[in-house]
Amino acid sequence: MPEFHTPPIMPMAIRFDHEQLTLAPAGPTLTRRMSDLEGLFRDEAARAAAAAGENPVVYTVTSSPVPEANRELPQSITTIMPGTTSGEFWMTKGHQHPDHQGEIYLAITGRGGILMFDGEQTSWLEMLPGTIGYIPPGWAHRSVNTGTEPYAFLAVYPGGAGHDYDWVVEHGMGKRAFRGPDGSALLRPFAE
Amino acid sequence: MPEFHTPPIMPMAIRFDHEQLTLAPAGPTLTRRMSDLEGLFRDEAARAAAAAGENPVVYTVTSSPVPEANRELPQSITTIMPGTTSGEFWMTKGHQHPDHQGEIYLAITGRGGILMFDGEQTSWLEMLPGTIGYIPPGWAHRSVNTGTEPYAFLAVYPGGAGHDYDWVVEHGMGKRAFRGPDGSALLRPFAE
Repeated sequence: MPEFHTPPIMPMAIRFDHEQLTLAPAGPTLTRRMSDLEGLFRDEAARAAAAAGENPVVYTVTSSPVPEANRELPQSITTIMPGTTSGEFWMTKGHQHPDHQGEIYLAITGRGGILMFDGEQTSWLEMLPGTIGYIPPGWAHRSVNTGTEPYAFLAVYPGGAGHDYDWVVEHGMGKRAFRGPDGSALLRPFAE
Repeated sequence: MPEFHTPPIMPMAIRFDHEQLTLAPAGPTLTRRMSDLEGLFRDEAARAAAAAGENPVVYTVTSSPVPEANRELPQSITTIMPGTTSGEFWMTKGHQHPDHQGEIYLAITGRGGILMFDGEQTSWLEMLPGTIGYIPPGWAHRSVNTGTEPYAFLAVYPGGAGHDYDWVVEHGMGKRAFRGPDGSALLRPFAE
């Protein structure tokens, strides 16, 4: 598998293919299957059954070679498959940046949303191609596919910010995104 | 004129229109005319004459409301007009980040390049729509329109990195980009 480069990083032209959803040259690709998402959906029994069955890929994250290192500005493309687990839209694990720094997501294709939580307030941004979602410092964030096709976005984030997935397990995200009666996102209290 | 927001910044959806070259909601827009570029082209007399005459707009930088503040990740669209001054392609002033941090440019339309200089080595990246140019920490950078149409790119950069324009005046950029015999960029020594 392609690796991140090691600093010092040299100037680099990276081909961003918004149709193939690739970055070239490529860095590592992360694949999250249902078995990687234990305890994150409201209906853990349904998730566990799916993980024990076909164990579908829920999302992938493919990076450029710019590393997650202090002072660098790495990029990645996340692609979330369409689907629901007991009505809850498929989503990323979500994380907080231990070193609070801002991040942007640029929606490329499909339809989605960003659920954000600062420990008190919840925010929900609708994401359509051409939308830049701004994630301010200190807001945990989770992406959700609210459509019927793959939802993909380009992320740009400070390499030293880090990823704290346990924060979300401990604090929740304030709300959950379910498919509503008309097909669009319906936010419900996290622990309802 | 629209202003930058003041931290704490809230989650925000920003509409990136790659045809109109706008960000909405909008922050400030910077306009650089020939009169703002004193001493930057090889042929200063030609530049001064153009500044004293029609004083054309050479480039604009339009920002989202995300501010240039520590820990934020602001974005802007730079549009450089096509043109040459005694054969040297129109370009931005160029700057170094006093706090060395990486930056990305995503080319949107037209044809251009990024000239980078770390004080010893020069790098040149060709930029076409879909190219992400990676500017590593410590590399001064200047953008150049090498085509016959406006060249525009989306920049994403750490808000605390800062802009040191004097660094370029003091150190130069290693090379200059001229229009070559076939119309494409020809790099020449900075002080030739």
